[in-house]
Amino acid sequence: MALLRPVTDPTKTCLTRPLTPHTTFDTYRGKISHNDIIGKQARDIVTTPKGVKFRIAFPTLEEYIVFVRRLVTPVYPVDAATIVSLLDIHVVPNDRNAEEQEPVEVLEAGTGHGSLTLYLSRALSPSPRAVLHTMDISPSHSAHAQKVVANFRRGIYLPNVRFNVSDPGTWCREQFSLRKGKPFLTHAILDLPGPDEYLFDVMRCLKPDGVVGVWCPSVSQIMVSVGKVKGSGLFCERVLEFPGGTGVGAGLRAWDVRPALIRAKLKKEVEVVAELTPPVSSPSEVLSEKAPVSEAFVCRPTVGDRLVGGGFFAMFRRKSEDDCNHSTTTAV
Amino acid sequence: MALLRPVTDPTKTCLTRPLTPHTTFDTYRGKISHNDIIGKQARDIVTTPKGVKFRIAFPTLEEYIVFVRRLVTPVYPVDAATIVSLLDIHVVPNDRNAEEQEPVEVLEAGTGHGSLTLYLSRALSPSPRAVLHTMDISPSHSAHAQKVVANFRRGIYLPNVRFNVSDPGTWCREQFSLRKGKPFLTHAILDLPGPDEYLFDVMRCLKPDGVVGVWCPSVSQIMVSVGKVKGSGLFCERVLEFPGGTGVGAGLRAWDVRPALIRAKLKKEVEVVAELTPPVSSPSEVLSEKAPVSEAFVCRPTVGDRLVGGGFFAMFRRKSEDDCNHSTTTAV
Amino acid sequence: MALLRPVTDPTKTCLTRPLTPHTTFDTYRGKISHNDIIGKQARDIVTTPKGVKFRIAFPTLEEYIVFVRRLVTPVYPVDAATIVSLLDIHVVPNDRNAEEQEPVEVLEAGTGHGSLTLYLSRALSPSPRAVLHTMDISPSHSAHAQKVVANFRRGIYLPNVRFNVSDPGTWCREQFSLRKGKPFLTHAILDLPGPDEYLFDVMRCLKPDGVVGVWCPSVSQIMVSVGKVKGSGLFCERVLEFPGGTGVGAGLRAWDVRPALIRAKLKKEVEVVAELTPPVSSPSEVLSEKAPVSEAFVCRPTVGDRLVGGGFFAMFRRKSEDDCNHSTTTAV
Amino acid sequence: MALLRPVTDPTKTCLTRPLTPHTTFDTYRGKISHNDIIGKQARDIVTTPKGVKFRIAFPTLEEYIVFVRRLVTPVYPVDAATIVSLLDIHVVPNDRNAEEQEPVEVLEAGTGHGSLTLYLSRALSPSPRAVLHTMDISPSHSAHAQKVVANFRRGIYLPNVRFNVSDPGTWCREQFSLRKGKPFLTHAILDLPGPDEYLFDVMRCLKPDGVVGVWCPSVSQIMVSVGKVKGSGLFCERVLEFPGGTGVGAGLRAWDVRPALIRAKLKKEVEVVAELTPPVSSPSEVLSEKAPVSEAFVCRPTVGDRLVGGGFFAMFRRKSEDDCNHSTTTAV
Repeated sequence: MALLRPVTDPTKTCLTRPLTPHTTFDTYRGKISHNDIIGKQARDIVTTPKGVKFRIAFPTLEEYIVFVRRLVTPVYPVDAATIVSLLDIHVVPNDRNAEEQEPVEVLEAGTGHGSLTLYLSRALSPSPRAVLHTMDISPSHSAHAQKVVANFRRGIYLPNVRFNVSDPGTWCREQFSLRKGKPFLTHAILDLPGPDEYLFDVMRCLKPDGVVGVWCPSVSQIMVSVGKVKGSGLFCERVLEFPGGTGVGAGLRAWDVRPALIRAKLKKEVEVVAELTPPVSSPSEVLSEKAPVSEAFVCRPTVGDRLVGGGFFAMFRRKSEDDCNHSTTTAV
Repeated sequence: MALLRPVTDPTKTCLTRPLTPHTTFDTYRGKISHNDIIGKQARDIVTTPKGVKFRIAFPTLEEYIVFVRRLVTPVYPVDAATIVSLLDIHVVPNDRNAEEQEPVEVLEAGTGHGSLTLYLSRALSPSPRAVLHTMDISPSHSAHAQKVVANFRRGIYLPNVRFNVSDPGTWCREQFSLRKGKPFLTHAILDLPGPDEYLFDVMRCLKPDGVVGVWCPSVSQIMVSVGKVKGSGLFCERVLEFPGGTGVGAGLRAWDVRPALIRAKLKKEVEVVAELTPPVSSPSEVLSEKAPVSEAFVCRPTVGDRLVGGGFFAMFRRKSEDDCNHSTTTAV
Repeated sequence: MALLRPVTDPTKTCLTRPLTPHTTFDTYRGKISHNDIIGKQARDIVTTPKGVKFRIAFPTLEEYIVFVRRLVTPVYPVDAATIVSLLDIHVVPNDRNAEEQEPVEVLEAGTGHGSLTLYLSRALSPSPRAVLHTMDISPSHSAHAQKVVANFRRGIYLPNVRFNVSDPGTWCREQFSLRKGKPFLTHAILDLPGPDEYLFDVMRCLKPDGVVGVWCPSVSQIMVSVGKVKGSGLFCERVLEFPGGTGVGAGLRAWDVRPALIRAKLKKEVEVVAELTPPVSSPSEVLSEKAPVSEAFVCRPTVGDRLVGGGFFAMFRRKSEDDCNHSTTTAV
Repeated sequence: MALLRPVTDPTKTCLTRPLTPHTTFDTYRGKISHNDIIGKQARDIVTTPKGVKFRIAFPTLEEYIVFVRRLVTPVYPVDAATIVSLLDIHVVPNDRNAEEQEPVEVLEAGTGHGSLTLYLSRALSPSPRAVLHTMDISPSHSAHAQKVVANFRRGIYLPNVRFNVSDPGTWCREQFSLRKGKPFLTHAILDLPGPDEYLFDVMRCLKPDGVVGVWCPSVSQIMVSVGKVKGSGLFCERVLEFPGGTGVGAGLRAWDVRPALIRAKLKKEVEVVAELTPPVSSPSEVLSEKAPVSEAFVCRPTVGDRLVGGGFFAMFRRKSEDDCNHSTTTAV
């Protein structure tokens, strides 16, 4: 799949479908044949019959998630990358003592859009010993997410993922029984309604010192989860808020930094820039035909932006068998 | 002027024109006669011929600024209130040593929408010894702002304001000459393009220890101002960023806190709430007809909000005559 | 009281006691006689016997609150100013129809440090018809807050305040009885533990369309309050978070903007600036004796700052008598 | 290396040195023999002669960076993870068309603490075809960073890194010459003073569509860089601010969420909690011996925290040979 970015209006950027030969793709202004794209380099240009020029790009994982067709809201890219980093998901290279090492198994309950799935799988990839079990109660969401993962970079992040249509409670109980009560998960992430209901089923499958993260929009859901684990084999290690951001989530802020020509505001009342740009609460650059031009730098957070992403994240850690027995006396 | 808030859809709230008898006001669904509003209490209800019910309210200053017709973007209410507070604008009550006290004179350069004008005048009001000189280069903006101030609460904040159509450099030089070189301003605020060009004219009019604030969208404008005052009779006391907020500016964040009924997500794939609400990056409340209902609390920052307000504020303080002479040796 | 700011080290700034003649004040390095300060102008200099020079300033309300002796944590200045602005506390000037107008009465439950008390009183000041009833359960806190208010600018904000040692429930019930069931408050603010317990007592004293704000550190306290008012004569109009800020609260961020001389990092490993300044996560300006010097601008949020202020604010509005009767059908 | 977390006071957590047998490690209260740690499981307990119990943990990458000995300030973990994600650093698995694929080569100029080095290498690991060239002008910083990388998880992220003591301009020119003018870098990140001076040397080494990120504390450095690339073979794709956070950087906010027992504030003035905890701007939980106890939830951003991390990030993309020739006509 390729990203087509109009040379004169980047806001009309779109993502093609998988590039099968002899078919076409509808842009906002005219069709483009897949044959015109296949074999091209990044930054090459294709033109529609109506004369609109698009620059070809191969999407980053972030661009792919933002532009690919969605059935549900994705976990925004920077939020997803941060969750993976906080969980510290990693694989020890497989050429070291391969035999004695157990596989890394990670649980993701709800698959949703497949966004976090891609980031989790990228952290495990391409290890043959690492598996991401992802599950969603909805067959259609699961099927769509599977397509989302399969179509990115020809599926390089697909081999490590097992898609399941299930609820995590049922799945964990089945696996726990199949594996004869032996914990097998190193990490789990719950991104679905009512996460507190699944904490104990997941806990039994977690190896000692394993972690389960809870990602949710309302801090009240975190409160319920924190209340539930008191005195159990899990303790809450940290609660973090990811503030929504105007970049791509996780509190990042997009800035507008560029040199600009500014004409001093004279008698004539023209607020050209103010009209062209989103509302600003303050003096804008104002152009007047007769005014002298001076050079200045625009350097400010972008204005009028919508916040995207954001949520609350709690991280619970599995105690060892031993300290579960006197868990009331230990804080960490 | 009254605020009309539809009983069933508060997002359609509107502000009437000044309530002159025997005229009508067009709502989004039918006319309302001013006679039906005059004499009513807050929270009384008026109904359009089409049957839409509106609850009457008398707007707060914040609501007034947000809803009144605008020619230019206002300084958002919480930003304006914060600027007034940081400048510490106040009047010592006039019953104390009235004769010996000099009047309080404040300068606002760029009247703009009249939003900051209202907040500045409120801080001076109702003292007969306090004057706000506000000026704008644009006659039409100045005239509109005068109407904005006059129409709020029957003009209670109008008496302290003098509207001028001028640029602050010219005005300051004229006043300085008229007053024979005697400084007369206690506070000044520059909210217009190229604020650095006016700093020294304003400085000469400022009493020792007086302050001039610079409010602008780009931090590069602050940099230019800070660079200019080096070694002069002004020093930069602080630079603050007002991050845009999702409440009403100044970094505030609106939260959605309410009890809700949540049905567990079962086999059926219905995402009713998710479709009705703005996009969320995380598990939403999901309704399914057959699922059991449980009570929960929504408690999170509102999602998908646009940031409003925000800007950079630098505060410069006038040195005394004495320390101007050896200003290079003093930091404060 | 005067602010003494060391000419060479502004971080050692301190506030004197009330300036009674013939007494002295201990600075961090030597005594200063009050007689040396009395009669001086702002920005004049006084010197200790040890030769430390202080510049005299008359504190802004913000500086006063930050520097005055405290028994409890204050509501930080910008947070306080924002609360006053959101409640839209104001007095219609008393020269208009003075007889027919009822007095403005505002309730503040817990007085605490007296910080919010000062901001509330400033908004009512100097109207003879406006009263702030403030109360605290602690006699010593109430007495200290009274001193805090009395010592600022010779007590200009004291005349409008009535200090009470009481809990707000008892006080409201007494007043409601004394006033024969007639509501008398236009605004109230609850800034004390367990605010939800007092909401209904306050509600009965609020005039129709009056507002009561709840200020608290935990959003769980807001949840409890929102849950309680469901179906009552109050409705929750908005919930806002004031994020802590590095300026003076309310989400503001202090920035460091200044021209600097920067020497390119050469072979020699000297990180002088990095050692002198608070920790930064990124390349700092680095000085090396032999390196060529270039001019640059430091322009960034101040680093390593502590967040101060912040909290959650819910605003509840009193319904009218009429709509209380069918409150379940109305959203606003 | 192991993390030792005191069971009763997690704030005294420390990181051991590499665990060589027969040596000891000094905690804040007594020595611990490495032999007591070697062979232990995570969450096992070791005790000093003074009776202080420590729980053993194997540090996450985040914990390692925060606790390991530092010569310079690190790029904070979440900031580092976000940079890696925004640059979209990844390796296509090597079992696919291995011969025809060129190696992935990434440049990091300034190595500094080795923090970003670890995150970059983790994204490339364990591919044998991926190389991270990292360089620092300071031999001692480079040597220390090499130790930092080598000691984490027995060096699993070391094989992909080449440490250089050089400035990036010299290195790029040498490599460009050695490789006969053929671009070889897919990504570069500049995290050192004066990044704008190196942009063009790096640009020549970047493959078409490759990206170079600039990470710096002052937005003025971004302005200089943006100004320089105008009309060149690079264009600025985005500028993002990573606000400092109270979690671990990148704008994240740590929250305090826990059930608590709260005693109503009665006559007695005891503010136990207020004294034990960092300053809060609002009513704290207050304990009084005789007061009735009620259960409540603390649920708020942690207070009094220092902001860590944060900075500005600009991402520049290399145009193709072709569009460099008419770069003035293209925006993207």
